Amino acid sequence: MNTNIWLYAGLVFGALSILAALATYRNVLQYDPGSARAQEIAGWIRAGASTYLKLLYNTLIAISIILGIILAVVFSGMEKQNHGLMTAAAFAFGALCSALAGWLGMKVAVEANVRTAVACKEGIPQGFNVAFKAGSVMGLAMVGVAVFGMSLLYLIWRDVEIILSFSFGASLLALLAKAGGGIYTKTADIAADLVGKVEVGIPEDDPRNPAVIADNVGDNVGDVAGMGADIFDSYVAAVVASMLLGASFFASGKVGIQYVLLPLLLCVIGIIATFIGLPFVRVGKDDKPGRALNFSTVFTCILFAVLSTIFFVVVNALSGGDPSKSLNWGALISTVAGLLIGVIIGFTTDYFTNDEHSPVRQVAKISGSGTGLTIITGFSYGLISIAPAIVGIVAAMITAYLSSQAFGLPGIYGVGLAAVGMLSLTGSVVSNDAYGPIVDNAKGIAEMSGMSHEVVDRADVLDSAGNTAKAITKGFSISAAALTVLAMFAAYSEVISTYSQKDFMLDLLDPLVLAGVLLGCVVPALFSALLMLSVTKNAFTMIEEIRRQFKAEPGILKGTVLPDYTQCVAIASSGALKALIGPAFLAVVFPLLVGFILGPGALGGFLGGAIFTGVVFALLMSNAGGLWDNGKKYIEAGNFGGSGSEAHKAAVVGDTVGDPFKDTAGPSLNTLITVMSLVSSLFAPLIAKWHIFG
Amino acid sequence: MNTNIWLYAGLVFGALSILAALATYRNVLQYDPGSARAQEIAGWIRAGASTYLKLLYNTLIAISIILGIILAVVFSGMEKQNHGLMTAAAFAFGALCSALAGWLGMKVAVEANVRTAVACKEGIPQGFNVAFKAGSVMGLAMVGVAVFGMSLLYLIWRDVEIILSFSFGASLLALLAKAGGGIYTKTADIAADLVGKVEVGIPEDDPRNPAVIADNVGDNVGDVAGMGADIFDSYVAAVVASMLLGASFFASGKVGIQYVLLPLLLCVIGIIATFIGLPFVRVGKDDKPGRALNFSTVFTCILFAVLSTIFFVVVNALSGGDPSKSLNWGALISTVAGLLIGVIIGFTTDYFTNDEHSPVRQVAKISGSGTGLTIITGFSYGLISIAPAIVGIVAAMITAYLSSQAFGLPGIYGVGLAAVGMLSLTGSVVSNDAYGPIVDNAKGIAEMSGMSHEVVDRADVLDSAGNTAKAITKGFSISAAALTVLAMFAAYSEVISTYSQKDFMLDLLDPLVLAGVLLGCVVPALFSALLMLSVTKNAFTMIEEIRRQFKAEPGILKGTVLPDYTQCVAIASSGALKALIGPAFLAVVFPLLVGFILGPGALGGFLGGAIFTGVVFALLMSNAGGLWDNGKKYIEAGNFGGSGSEAHKAAVVGDTVGDPFKDTAGPSLNTLITVMSLVSSLFAPLIAKWHIFG
Repeated sequence: MNTNIWLYAGLVFGALSILAALATYRNVLQYDPGSARAQEIAGWIRAGASTYLKLLYNTLIAISIILGIILAVVFSGMEKQNHGLMTAAAFAFGALCSALAGWLGMKVAVEANVRTAVACKEGIPQGFNVAFKAGSVMGLAMVGVAVFGMSLLYLIWRDVEIILSFSFGASLLALLAKAGGGIYTKTADIAADLVGKVEVGIPEDDPRNPAVIADNVGDNVGDVAGMGADIFDSYVAAVVASMLLGASFFASGKVGIQYVLLPLLLCVIGIIATFIGLPFVRVGKDDKPGRALNFSTVFTCILFAVLSTIFFVVVNALSGGDPSKSLNWGALISTVAGLLIGVIIGFTTDYFTNDEHSPVRQVAKISGSGTGLTIITGFSYGLISIAPAIVGIVAAMITAYLSSQAFGLPGIYGVGLAAVGMLSLTGSVVSNDAYGPIVDNAKGIAEMSGMSHEVVDRADVLDSAGNTAKAITKGFSISAAALTVLAMFAAYSEVISTYSQKDFMLDLLDPLVLAGVLLGCVVPALFSALLMLSVTKNAFTMIEEIRRQFKAEPGILKGTVLPDYTQCVAIASSGALKALIGPAFLAVVFPLLVGFILGPGALGGFLGGAIFTGVVFALLMSNAGGLWDNGKKYIEAGNFGGSGSEAHKAAVVGDTVGDPFKDTAGPSLNTLITVMSLVSSLFAPLIAKWHIFG
Repeated sequence: MNTNIWLYAGLVFGALSILAALATYRNVLQYDPGSARAQEIAGWIRAGASTYLKLLYNTLIAISIILGIILAVVFSGMEKQNHGLMTAAAFAFGALCSALAGWLGMKVAVEANVRTAVACKEGIPQGFNVAFKAGSVMGLAMVGVAVFGMSLLYLIWRDVEIILSFSFGASLLALLAKAGGGIYTKTADIAADLVGKVEVGIPEDDPRNPAVIADNVGDNVGDVAGMGADIFDSYVAAVVASMLLGASFFASGKVGIQYVLLPLLLCVIGIIATFIGLPFVRVGKDDKPGRALNFSTVFTCILFAVLSTIFFVVVNALSGGDPSKSLNWGALISTVAGLLIGVIIGFTTDYFTNDEHSPVRQVAKISGSGTGLTIITGFSYGLISIAPAIVGIVAAMITAYLSSQAFGLPGIYGVGLAAVGMLSLTGSVVSNDAYGPIVDNAKGIAEMSGMSHEVVDRADVLDSAGNTAKAITKGFSISAAALTVLAMFAAYSEVISTYSQKDFMLDLLDPLVLAGVLLGCVVPALFSALLMLSVTKNAFTMIEEIRRQFKAEPGILKGTVLPDYTQCVAIASSGALKALIGPAFLAVVFPLLVGFILGPGALGGFLGGAIFTGVVFALLMSNAGGLWDNGKKYIEAGNFGGSGSEAHKAAVVGDTVGDPFKDTAGPSLNTLITVMSLVSSLFAPLIAKWHIFG
């Protein structure tokens, strides 16, 4: 089989996925947008989101242009012709693709929220249908632009290093969108809760709260644009890492050319599995929406495994035993092993964050004895939850390595495929992720526009389902990101070996490597702290503003005067953007400083250190945050005293702490280590030549 | 100079240090123990502490016997004659020395507390004098038994591997004493505060609180026996690691025999510096006690640097240029660099935990806007505080490595010496550490026995000074432990190289090494979680018991009936002991499983991973805990609304969360990684021969 066909398949199915996203978008728009009042509220949210997005994208365009010029200049010194311009173009293209997919996801989310609320008047299945369709726009768009973009670039330049630059552009944009969105959403959420619920005692999503629109905008910019990108950057990076490894082993004659493109083709199979799987996601009259979402994950997973196996069988049958055309079975085992272990890790995460199991209940129970114990216990379970996920990551890595090696493929290439396998579900996972904030918004709009209790309750059922699905996909994304950066770590070493023309080792007993690891360990901690301090600082400002409005105009609390929503929206927007400088520096400039000063060994160690603590903190923060959130909800469901009890007050504090843990710092850490790995691999040829020590 | 003289110097100065401790102990006993009422209260605390210590030591003797037998059997298979018995004997001796020093420290603390309170009637300098003397008993005893024990063992067997077993015994005991004590003290502290202060509104140290005696016992078993051991195990391990490296490089002809014993002799110089420094620690009439404690640290540090330099000059003058007798200047630079950077790190820790700087004030300020923000902000500053300490550790490591290498010594040996240099202050640091709980207890006794306000206030001044000194010594201990385990990490590799007779590498690109690192990263997280969950679980039980007593006997709160103190003491004791099984397994059995199953490379990676996240979590937890504690105190001093305000309530929750962070999990992590490194190095000869993979 000519592997060019694989590239064309990538172009075609990538384009189809984008078209499917656009068609679904148009379909969503045809649902009833509801009463004038509902539309007015949705309009405020839409306007707030647009304002922020415009500001964000202006900033990002500026950053992209500057970085693009730097890339063009720096890489023009390489032997390859026009390498600088090509690198810059691919970077800009990657950033553009990532931005487009995020923008489309947001665009549909702010239209779908009100339509979901209206559809809930008919019933839960109808509401679910609108929200899930809207979510899948983002899922389809993201995998579409990724696969189309990568195929196109490879078809033109036949150089994986150019795709690396594409991946860097996409990931950097995802990082900034996610970090900014994460800060925005939690600033608004915490401020709205602390003054609204705790100080003046009005319910959530009450239109009298001046921060209520900012809070709902936050769900969109943080959870749709931000969280959708959570897994997108890993997706592209996993493919690039595997392609880099494949290209390097092809160059040294260890594997055939087909292994360079296999990762891309596995994505095509993933798109096909998603196409087949999506229409099956439906909620029957008495079904639970949560089950439908999980079914979507598991079903797509099985489809992918079956389709991949068929593909391997067909290719090998057609190859007639020619090793340059056939595919190694070790590659199939590695891919499927990664996929299966990814799903298992996702479900173990559920154990720590689902209120049907002991951790959440323990935290809820101990909340009655004091807020301090709520925090300590939740934090401790968060620490424990690191263990099963890391054991899973190790199991996936070792299985993939050994099974590939057993069949004569380089083991580390198998690890890359395991990451690609785990991420083949990206379309489905992003759809589930984007569903969450849409139903959350729908609930808010239903309440604010005075729809009936029944409608609000239905929207609430859809919302809880989103939370459970989110916990599972989150454990999944972190593991996938970890496996991806491990593959990228190996790819970095291969690039260094190639360009320095000697075997590259990362010996922990070498003091420069060890120094690199220790410095790398610091980055995720610093990064998380910067994001969370921005949240508390901005929330503090917003709290002052809300208190000021209540004081200046007593009519607001009486419900006779509308609060000034734009002030809170402005505070959240400008605060989030200002906060991006430090994190961007840590992700991009710090690795380069380490590399050019302390040398490639130290940079390798640095990446390792960042991966180690990055994964640990990401798991800790995401799971502890989810656990506190559900502990609070478990009490609100009437356990241990219910709403208003001392236990509930303690649990609310736990939830507030968990908010920036799980929605700001935790998910951004995945992207942080991805961006760090990508920038290191991209600059590896330069660092291999020029560095001060090492 | 004959290096035998160095060993005799070790014996003599070790013995002198022990004698000085005993003499000081007798001297403390001669102070006035106060009124019958004060003595009665002190008697309860003494009895509670004895009960717990008896239980603890019974458990520890049982564990030591079992482990001793295992060691005797396992190591009898080695080529060396009687190696099994010698290993077991050294292990038991190490455990005994560690237990003795801890026991003596406790013994004097429970006598000194009441005497300090009584001395405060005369004035702050008098109270300081008693407490600091009592603290120095522990400091002198610990360095004494360590240096005496190591010198004696080497004099008899001339084999550093036997001293390694001594170090393992000492560290394992320190770990269990510290973890158990840490759980005990925070169980009682949290339970006493949550019911006493928060629920029924009686002040701290009120005799009506059934947990008040358990709380004061906790200060002794947790902070004296536990915290004193915080640095002791690093002290022994740093010497052993350097001796192991020296012996290995001597065997390969890279260094002379004098470098095997140099680390021990540096300890002798440290003892001499402490002897000279201690009498200078005095508080004048208008001096601050905190300044006196810091002066002690800095003065001893300068003395040590001067004495070491003189020693090097004298040895080199006497050697007549004979390289087998002279000392390399690189060794001196490494030692002093370690010492200086240690002190610098200690003072940067102060920045994050002292209320004169921005972090504590920011947390205090934001507390007015909600408890959640207090936790997030404090946690974030804790995350940031990791950075300067790790940069310091890296700087110390690189400086020592390069300066030793520049003078022709193996660089990694220099890293070992830097750790020894940093820890040469151990006598002085442990004295400062033990001072804290003594004055804390003194304050409690003064309040409970109804001494005048003036006396209580003076005791309070002494107490705050203890807190500030503690923050500095804590940053210092973590860095010293980190540098120690890095040296031990290298020592482990040397042992593996020697016994497997090939060059040993820890290549991060080897999947087994990487798997080891990832698994190692999990251990500190799991370990911390187990300790903290034990605290919350036991505190929950104790809270129920306190509530039960208040309900069953209303006379308790009226002050007419004494509560049953023994119940709370029993809950704290048995709870703490039961909680030690999991952590002991993690520290001892888990590394061996990794080593014998996944091989020496994986175990090396495992140690690395545990060191990386261990240091990160230790710094995070200790500093965030200290910061919350002082944030609360800053508000209590009348800022941002003062005691009773909303800000204060939030800060109290922060303090409760910080308690197990800084006094249970954080400080135990140092010892955890020390024990893991020691057990791995000890079993390295066996693991090099027998393992399944790798």
